[in-house]
Amino acid sequence: MKAAVWYNNKDVRIEDKEIKNVKENEVKVKVAWSGICGTDLHEYEIGPILIPVDTPNPITGEKAPIVLGHEFSAIVEEVGEQVTNVKKGDRVVVNPVITSGKHDARVDRYYEFYSHGLHTDGSFAEYVVTKAENLVLVPEGLPLDKAALAEPLSVSAQAIKEGQVNDGDNVAIFGCGPIGLFAIVAAKVSGAKNIYAFDLSDERLEKAKQVGATHVLNTRDTDAVAYLKERHPEGVDASFEVAGVKPTFDAAIASTKPKGNVVVIAIHARNFEFNPVQLMLSGVKLSSSLGYEHATFKESLDILMNEEIDFSPIMTKKIDLDNLVEEGFHSLSSDLSQAKILVKLSGEL
Amino acid sequence: MKAAVWYNNKDVRIEDKEIKNVKENEVKVKVAWSGICGTDLHEYEIGPILIPVDTPNPITGEKAPIVLGHEFSAIVEEVGEQVTNVKKGDRVVVNPVITSGKHDARVDRYYEFYSHGLHTDGSFAEYVVTKAENLVLVPEGLPLDKAALAEPLSVSAQAIKEGQVNDGDNVAIFGCGPIGLFAIVAAKVSGAKNIYAFDLSDERLEKAKQVGATHVLNTRDTDAVAYLKERHPEGVDASFEVAGVKPTFDAAIASTKPKGNVVVIAIHARNFEFNPVQLMLSGVKLSSSLGYEHATFKESLDILMNEEIDFSPIMTKKIDLDNLVEEGFHSLSSDLSQAKILVKLSGEL
Repeated sequence: MKAAVWYNNKDVRIEDKEIKNVKENEVKVKVAWSGICGTDLHEYEIGPILIPVDTPNPITGEKAPIVLGHEFSAIVEEVGEQVTNVKKGDRVVVNPVITSGKHDARVDRYYEFYSHGLHTDGSFAEYVVTKAENLVLVPEGLPLDKAALAEPLSVSAQAIKEGQVNDGDNVAIFGCGPIGLFAIVAAKVSGAKNIYAFDLSDERLEKAKQVGATHVLNTRDTDAVAYLKERHPEGVDASFEVAGVKPTFDAAIASTKPKGNVVVIAIHARNFEFNPVQLMLSGVKLSSSLGYEHATFKESLDILMNEEIDFSPIMTKKIDLDNLVEEGFHSLSSDLSQAKILVKLSGEL
Repeated sequence: MKAAVWYNNKDVRIEDKEIKNVKENEVKVKVAWSGICGTDLHEYEIGPILIPVDTPNPITGEKAPIVLGHEFSAIVEEVGEQVTNVKKGDRVVVNPVITSGKHDARVDRYYEFYSHGLHTDGSFAEYVVTKAENLVLVPEGLPLDKAALAEPLSVSAQAIKEGQVNDGDNVAIFGCGPIGLFAIVAAKVSGAKNIYAFDLSDERLEKAKQVGATHVLNTRDTDAVAYLKERHPEGVDASFEVAGVKPTFDAAIASTKPKGNVVVIAIHARNFEFNPVQLMLSGVKLSSSLGYEHATFKESLDILMNEEIDFSPIMTKKIDLDNLVEEGFHSLSSDLSQAKILVKLSGEL
């Protein structure tokens, strides 16, 4: 089958790759659409970050070269002997992260895990073979291009859960890339009253407005903390740091109310100077979000079915697998108007 | 009256100070015992930190010279016209922190506040004039020297609340100065099963054992994270950083389970290199504790009445006001076997 295979940074090849055999508890799916994640981009630009190169992943026994891609929708092609939850022809999305199941579902992902597209072959390919338990049926009426958003949406939905966003809350989102945009969506669905979105790009802020932010502010012109403190002198209820830099980290802490939640979702590329006294003075609780529970992954399909939310501003481009590097990676890193680029595999809807 | 007055660092004078008039909602108390806090020591050694020197505190209108001391028990001497909650002769402890009352009681202290011994005259003096609402009656049977521990115990009890310590929990305490020792006490009272206490001083660890730690380890000989991970591979339920240095901050995060609480109680004197990815990998929630709710202050008297706990290892010395600098401050900073030094004012029990 045709696949995009990661050999090294700046070396992702579109080539022929053998399809794995389907074991008794596994399913082979025909990929419909597969979104490009920031993680894919980082593995392309500066990797290896998570992809095993020298030592194989201890669970999968695999290492580079590995097929990239983990945000995908698909159609069931073949099921193993023991599989009962899906049948050939079913429309599905796949939770790409396989955990051990040995710990509480709320935290299982913090222990042993592996992911399609990083530790075993992923979805920038015609087919994926995966465990049956990771498949979730796509509801009727939800097209498969939009269903491919389930995975990144789950990341943001989990973060909004970590931030304990409730009905009527005031929420600040620092950074309006795809994960920030999905966080706005998830905050809206959770009943947030005011959703303040901050970014340096007017194009991104326009999208933020379209998907549900009630106030969008360019931090080139506006001091986020002063702006929020004027409207909410006690601080906002929760804030989300989706930019991955110290200024947004500091702003999130300074603008959130005592005992409110500051959740870091962004991967910070650089260390910075910190003193926990900063937490004492603001009184916030600082946490982070990494991945998602399987329950959250399933719930993301409900969010995608919500008719009040327009996801079209997030799906900015559809490309062919052959153009993954040029039209995908290069476009994402140079064009701030891009959010989620979907790669067409079978392209079914 | 005789009082210990802070003029500047290394300049605390025992001298005569005028007693304030008692307003209608105020009470004049005769101080019995007053403990020395780390804050007092820092103001003496490297202050001013919190004491206003150039600009008066906006609420009290006061600035240095100011009488130090805020951990005290006393006997009511005189009550203002409108005071009904106490009468002359009552044995009391005084919550030294006056907040505005404008916000939820859970967080009121994070907004406007002032404290005896920093922003208005404190308890290293024969008398203190304070608001009636900040007085709490001392239960019969609780001697006034022990009652003077209520204030620092409240700091630790609040932190244990922030850490949501529950029955049967495994808890790690990094640092066994007075606040660490009180945290052990509060964790025990909250039902913690295993309480692991870490310090560099065997003398402090001996006290930790005496007040309720189930395991005490000197981090000179023991890698705290490896030790805890061997016993609790998923991590402890909550940990408390009471040492104020990067190694204990890192150890607390590394040894706590995903979604467990890491609570910083210590004031960190130095910034350090940090990356929020550290929180993502461990999955902990990082918070801090500063001061306490008035409800916690009142509850600390119940903890002091608990007969299962021996507080005597914490009360290491009693001194006269005249010896505050030499026998108090100098002793605390040079002798690790010292925990809480009580200054005798009227010395009643």
